[in-house]
Amino acid sequence: MIEHDLQETISLLARTPAALDALLRNLPAKWTLRNEGENTWSVIEVIGHLIHAERADWMPRARMVLQFGESQTFEPFDRLGYKRESQGKSLGQLLDKFGHLRSGSLSELRALNLKEEDLERRGRHPDLGVVTLSQLLATWATHDLTHLHQISRVMAHQYWEAVGPWSEYLGVLECRGQR
Amino acid sequence: MIEHDLQETISLLARTPAALDALLRNLPAKWTLRNEGENTWSVIEVIGHLIHAERADWMPRARMVLQFGESQTFEPFDRLGYKRESQGKSLGQLLDKFGHLRSGSLSELRALNLKEEDLERRGRHPDLGVVTLSQLLATWATHDLTHLHQISRVMAHQYWEAVGPWSEYLGVLECRGQR
Repeated sequence: MIEHDLQETISLLARTPAALDALLRNLPAKWTLRNEGENTWSVIEVIGHLIHAERADWMPRARMVLQFGESQTFEPFDRLGYKRESQGKSLGQLLDKFGHLRSGSLSELRALNLKEEDLERRGRHPDLGVVTLSQLLATWATHDLTHLHQISRVMAHQYWEAVGPWSEYLGVLECRGQR
Repeated sequence: MIEHDLQETISLLARTPAALDALLRNLPAKWTLRNEGENTWSVIEVIGHLIHAERADWMPRARMVLQFGESQTFEPFDRLGYKRESQGKSLGQLLDKFGHLRSGSLSELRALNLKEEDLERRGRHPDLGVVTLSQLLATWATHDLTHLHQISRVMAHQYWEAVGPWSEYLGVLECRGQR
């Protein structure tokens, strides 16, 4: 395990838009519109969710910790908020929007110039209770990774039949995380 | 599910080096040298495995299908071959090597100018038996995704403690694929 390190978290967060761009931009729509079955997300819905989280979750909650501490509970995160963000948008538009929002979030985060003691400040999550700013920021980076993990799985799923007997060797096809 | 499409497979394969580059290049070594526990791979070992597969697995097997059909069995793939590739190399060297090899593989694949009927040609896998060239090529692209899925999981694992109570919301931390 790695202890939380703010500069490394920022470095991870800064990488995600370019990684998603390299993986996804200009792929034929069928790769990004199909999901893994009922009540699962397509790639384009995952990007919508990342955009929604960027607007509603990470920096707004960080600001709340710094301003109000434990005295004010975070707004619950709307897990269906991705629909408003992704409907009627092309993948390219969504990738542009995500990159733009992420860049703004990181400018704001850097400008806070947080010290070690700031990272120990506490806020209140509506379900999880008391959490620290350090945990919030580590979760932000790990949340990117959980969705990169999901995107690679959703895409691999589309070739499940195409790979024929090799499916038993491909661990990604066995993953049941996030379903 | 998506039927195998050679041009889309090539497009997926061409994306992987840039996606890995965006995600990984110049990350502090602890992010790429740690694994998920005993008998699991670090990120740098995964890249070594991709390099080894690029040399020993995909195009060599495609050539065997085209030259010998079912009459000759593929060489078994050495799952420890990654060690020779990754030992003593920096992450940057490994990313460069992988990108270079992938570019060469795709030039060779494109130059074969495969037709639909070529994709139905059959070869013989040492464990799986008869497989088609189409299945081999779909597996190549899906194998990239399975290892991107693994890399995102190995990295997320490092922040398991840092995220505190949020760990229960992060599906990537529940995935047991490929362990």
